[in-house]
Amino acid sequence: MKIKVTQEKLSKALNNISRIAISKVTLPILNNVLIRVDQKKVSLTTTNLDMAIVDYLPVSSSEDGVITVPAKLLAEFVSNLPKGENTEISLKNNKVTIKAGDYSSIINGTPADDFPELPEIDEKKAVVYKVGVDEFKTSLAEVIIATSNDLTRPALTGVYFNTSDNILRIAATDGYRLAEKKLIDKVESEVQAVVPASSLQEVLRSISDDVEEVEISFNEDLVRFRLGEVEIISKLIDASFPDYQRLIPKDPEIKIKLSREELVRVTKLAALFSKSVGGSIVCEAIEPDTFSVKSIANEFGENDSKINTKVEKSGKVNLNSRFLLDALNALEEPTISFEFSGHVAPILLKNQKKNNYIHIVMPLNS
Amino acid sequence: MKIKVTQEKLSKALNNISRIAISKVTLPILNNVLIRVDQKKVSLTTTNLDMAIVDYLPVSSSEDGVITVPAKLLAEFVSNLPKGENTEISLKNNKVTIKAGDYSSIINGTPADDFPELPEIDEKKAVVYKVGVDEFKTSLAEVIIATSNDLTRPALTGVYFNTSDNILRIAATDGYRLAEKKLIDKVESEVQAVVPASSLQEVLRSISDDVEEVEISFNEDLVRFRLGEVEIISKLIDASFPDYQRLIPKDPEIKIKLSREELVRVTKLAALFSKSVGGSIVCEAIEPDTFSVKSIANEFGENDSKINTKVEKSGKVNLNSRFLLDALNALEEPTISFEFSGHVAPILLKNQKKNNYIHIVMPLNS
Repeated sequence: MKIKVTQEKLSKALNNISRIAISKVTLPILNNVLIRVDQKKVSLTTTNLDMAIVDYLPVSSSEDGVITVPAKLLAEFVSNLPKGENTEISLKNNKVTIKAGDYSSIINGTPADDFPELPEIDEKKAVVYKVGVDEFKTSLAEVIIATSNDLTRPALTGVYFNTSDNILRIAATDGYRLAEKKLIDKVESEVQAVVPASSLQEVLRSISDDVEEVEISFNEDLVRFRLGEVEIISKLIDASFPDYQRLIPKDPEIKIKLSREELVRVTKLAALFSKSVGGSIVCEAIEPDTFSVKSIANEFGENDSKINTKVEKSGKVNLNSRFLLDALNALEEPTISFEFSGHVAPILLKNQKKNNYIHIVMPLNS
Repeated sequence: MKIKVTQEKLSKALNNISRIAISKVTLPILNNVLIRVDQKKVSLTTTNLDMAIVDYLPVSSSEDGVITVPAKLLAEFVSNLPKGENTEISLKNNKVTIKAGDYSSIINGTPADDFPELPEIDEKKAVVYKVGVDEFKTSLAEVIIATSNDLTRPALTGVYFNTSDNILRIAATDGYRLAEKKLIDKVESEVQAVVPASSLQEVLRSISDDVEEVEISFNEDLVRFRLGEVEIISKLIDASFPDYQRLIPKDPEIKIKLSREELVRVTKLAALFSKSVGGSIVCEAIEPDTFSVKSIANEFGENDSKINTKVEKSGKVNLNSRFLLDALNALEEPTISFEFSGHVAPILLKNQKKNNYIHIVMPLNS
């Protein structure tokens, strides 16, 4: 095996893929990166058994071969080499020599036989979507915040990719809130798949500036994200996602238009005084023109802020301030719609104009 | 008590002083900031018993009074108020009302009687020095890295301010390395005082852009740093600093000139391969023109880098790579001098030209 490549290209690829290489005492090879040169095509692969990242390295010359070496050690070594230097990687007796100018290191490798590779996507059976990278990043960030960390409810730890009426939507819920975004209009093939949030976080981190489009391919139990020279393959979560459509309030009784910035500010102020009551705050619409956000009085003191806005029907709801702030951060327009039906029904938050994103927050008992 | 002040001024002062307000279950008042208006002079004070920060607030109007309130709650509340808004703080029945435009909060205060204030500097007996803020910041940063965290040797957890030959020097050592900087030439009064590194870290953090000069006043057991409107008062460490001058190698046998950038790079590369041996690396001067830095071969592999430079006498020394990197980061010139006398004597690192800073690292057993 012989690879010649610039320090910059190699360092970028190694930094990207070495993130998921993990220290598992029971399976130390997961620390390693698989370096493979096959018919002069060079690939670097790491895996944590649930997902794998492959970077196809554009190189100037190569000889075939395959080996694994500690990923973080190699990544840090290469990132400390001088910029612009040509780097040469060669393999002999399971020892990998890396040379760049006057710098030279020998890293002890481990044969690739035991390296656990994920199954590949079956291209023939795959359902494939393509989406612009900006739309993909924004949408995913807006939805992923509502996923759960509770491993006893696996479906809630993922993002649900699902089609209906020729629209591909993504949704997530942790049982206390729910976010849904239309990702692609006018799709032809259908999918219902729960993708682990942890894999999606890696996809988001792996998108470099030169990527313009994300290709998403689903098999029955796998998904592959192709981002330029990088591919991320992840297992799907084998659990059904709840029928979330029925949770979305159909026509809330009270609809208030509010400045997003103003609501963020008053929510933060009230939240400061609500730490001892788990972040609980009281939102109240008061006819004809007041929206009030306040903390519940406690040992530290109390806080009350008012926003001037048109109110046609009065009502009151208790909310977790952190969930409200998360939702407001995910909304993008300067004016948002805060919709609810009293203190027991879920509240609905939307942008004033665009209707491609909804965020639902369950009320707290008052 | 009544204070009127802009949000910016109040927020800056509160963020600065609230850092040292700590949650001590045994003495909850240490969470609080003391707000005092005395003859229309407003001061905000926090303390952790070892040190205190006082910010003298320039305000537009005030009525006398004194109270304490939770520092972080007040700081976060004010920092979330709109910029440019006028803020009014008033006191009634131990309740502090803060108003700014449409925003209003009541914070429950605690009477100031139990607030532990540090003793004041006795101006008549004080030894006072003044130093430019840039010189002060740089010098302190270069020395403080050599302080120890070992509370069983209290003198080593501080920086030693000491005069001799009309020069004020600062020095620190953790027993494995030592840094010394000349802080002020031509001083008239004398001092020998060990200032806690933790207090100095706070001093460094509290220097804002508009401060040009630092005034340092020593009493027998106290030191005060005056930085514009901010004063930091700290207890001194009651322990003698070791007689460090005798540790400084007088005339090392081997003196090598090296590019600082180059030596940093090869040290980092060798350090990557030295994690399993505690970061130990081997530096070797080889006649007539080679300086080599290498790791000791181990399970991960090995690394060897060479720098071309004039060598008049060969020699070899084992070092902790982290200590060497710390020292190189503290040096400032592009060319540095690496001086040693074989593998048992301490090594001496200096800038090539300026001779106001020295850094000593003890060798490891080879």
